[in-house]
Amino acid sequence: MERKLMESRPVVLKLGGSAITDKLNQEPNPRSDVISRAAAEIIKAHVKNLVIVHGAGSFGHPMAQEFMLKDGFREEGQKMGFAVTHNMVSVLNGLVMDALLVDDFPALSITPSSCVVASDGRIKRFEDQPLRMLLRMGITPVMYGDVVMDERIGFTVVSGDQLASVLAVKLDARKIIMAGNTDGVYDGDPKSPGAKPYSRLTLADLKKIEDKLGESAGTDVTGGMLGKIVELKPAVEAGIPVNVVNATRANSIYRALVDEKVEGTLIEKG
Amino acid sequence: MERKLMESRPVVLKLGGSAITDKLNQEPNPRSDVISRAAAEIIKAHVKNLVIVHGAGSFGHPMAQEFMLKDGFREEGQKMGFAVTHNMVSVLNGLVMDALLVDDFPALSITPSSCVVASDGRIKRFEDQPLRMLLRMGITPVMYGDVVMDERIGFTVVSGDQLASVLAVKLDARKIIMAGNTDGVYDGDPKSPGAKPYSRLTLADLKKIEDKLGESAGTDVTGGMLGKIVELKPAVEAGIPVNVVNATRANSIYRALVDEKVEGTLIEKG
Repeated sequence: MERKLMESRPVVLKLGGSAITDKLNQEPNPRSDVISRAAAEIIKAHVKNLVIVHGAGSFGHPMAQEFMLKDGFREEGQKMGFAVTHNMVSVLNGLVMDALLVDDFPALSITPSSCVVASDGRIKRFEDQPLRMLLRMGITPVMYGDVVMDERIGFTVVSGDQLASVLAVKLDARKIIMAGNTDGVYDGDPKSPGAKPYSRLTLADLKKIEDKLGESAGTDVTGGMLGKIVELKPAVEAGIPVNVVNATRANSIYRALVDEKVEGTLIEKG
Repeated sequence: MERKLMESRPVVLKLGGSAITDKLNQEPNPRSDVISRAAAEIIKAHVKNLVIVHGAGSFGHPMAQEFMLKDGFREEGQKMGFAVTHNMVSVLNGLVMDALLVDDFPALSITPSSCVVASDGRIKRFEDQPLRMLLRMGITPVMYGDVVMDERIGFTVVSGDQLASVLAVKLDARKIIMAGNTDGVYDGDPKSPGAKPYSRLTLADLKKIEDKLGESAGTDVTGGMLGKIVELKPAVEAGIPVNVVNATRANSIYRALVDEKVEGTLIEKG
C-alpha cells in the first residue's frame, strides 16, 4: 500500500536548455537529435505522473540578457524584447511538443507566462489547476523557462530550474531529474581534465563546497551547475532527491526515469 | 474626466477563425493575407487597452469534431486528439503573434488551456492576473479558442466567442469587435442573393429573430452567426455593444477600432 502510494507521486524531469539547444550559439539553435532522443526515452519509460520542464537555452538567454529582462521593466524598449523572448521560447516548446506528439505521447504545454506571476523574480502566484487536472487524466504537462509578469518589478524571467523546484515541492514529487549536458555536478570545471563528477552530494556537502568557493562564487568553477542547484535546494530540503544526469548520453534519461542505475550525481537531504 | 475614463476601458477584438483561416478546408490552412492585414490595421489603430481573441478555424474545428472534444472525455483515444488540437491552435496563434511582433507591436499570447478551467463547457475559473498586468503595462494580450480542462466532463472546447464575451464582462470593456468573414449579421443566409446585413440589432430584435427561427434554430439560416451572438449576449446585457464587421474587407478592423463608421451590424442592449 505504502509502495503504491510512493509510486503515484510525480516525477519532475527538467530538460536543460544547454542540452536541447546549442547554447554556445547566440542564435536560437535547437539540438533536434537530443530533443528526439529525449522524447523517445520519455515515451519508452512510460512513467506515471510525469511533469516535464525544459530550459530556454539559446531561444531565451541571449535576448533576455540583451534586454535585461530578469531585472524587470525599466523602459519602453524592453517591451518588444519581453514579447519576442516569449515568442522564441514558445517556438522551442513547440519543437519539444512535436517530438512527443509525433509518437502519440499525450502531452500538453502549460505556458508559464499565462499562469505564473512572480514577485522580485520569484514565483508568487501559480494557477496550477489545469496542470493538476492534466496529471490526473494521464496527460503529461510540459512547462518551460519563460518571461512572466512580476508584481514588484513589472516583469522578469523564471528559469526552468525554479519552475522544476517549485513544481516538485507543490506536487510532493518523488524525485527531480535534471538532465543537462554534463555527467553530473563536477568538483571543478567539467571541461578541465582533472575534474570529476560527484556521485552523491548531501546538503551538508553542498554547504561545504559553497563555503570553499567563498567569494569566488560569482565565477562558478563547477561550470554553472552550483547556481542551478541553489535553485533546487528548497526541493532537496523538502526531502525530494535530485538526480543530475547527462541528457546528451543515450539512455540516461530513460534509466533515471525508471530508477535504474545511471551515471550522474544524486543530491539528497542528508 | 468622464470621457477619459471611458477611453481607458478596454476594447476586445475577436478575429474570427472563418476570417483568419480557410474554414471550408478540412486541413489547417491559414489565410496569411487576412492575418497580415488585420495585424497592420491593429497596429495603425493604436488602441489603448486592447485585448485580442482569435478563433481556431480549420486549425481546431475539424479535429475537435473528429474527437468530440467539446462533449468531454469519454475514452483514452481522445487524449491524443485533445493534445494535438491544442498544439494545432497554438501553431495558428504563433502565426498571429508573428504578424504582430514582426512590426514591433508588443503583444503576448495568453494560453487558455494554461489559465482557464471550465465546468460543463462554460468558463468557471480564469486566472486573469497575467492578462490584467500585461494590459496595465501596455502589452496586448492575445487569447484564442482552445481546448481546456473541465471539472465536470474532463476536458472541453472553449470558443474564441465565449472567451471574448467573458473577457469583455470581466474587464468592463468599452466594446467588442467581432471581425468575421461576413458584412455583419444577415437576415438570411449571407450567401443567398436577397439576404442583407442588419445595421443595428437590439436584444429585443434578437429575441424576435430567435422566436421566428423557432424550432429551425438547429439549422441556423443566418450562416451560424446567431449561434455566435448567443455567446455574446451576456456582454450585450451588461451594456457592452458588439460591432460585427468583416475582417476580410480592408480597413473594417481599423475603422471599428478607432470608432469610425464601418459597414457591419451593431448589437446593443436596447
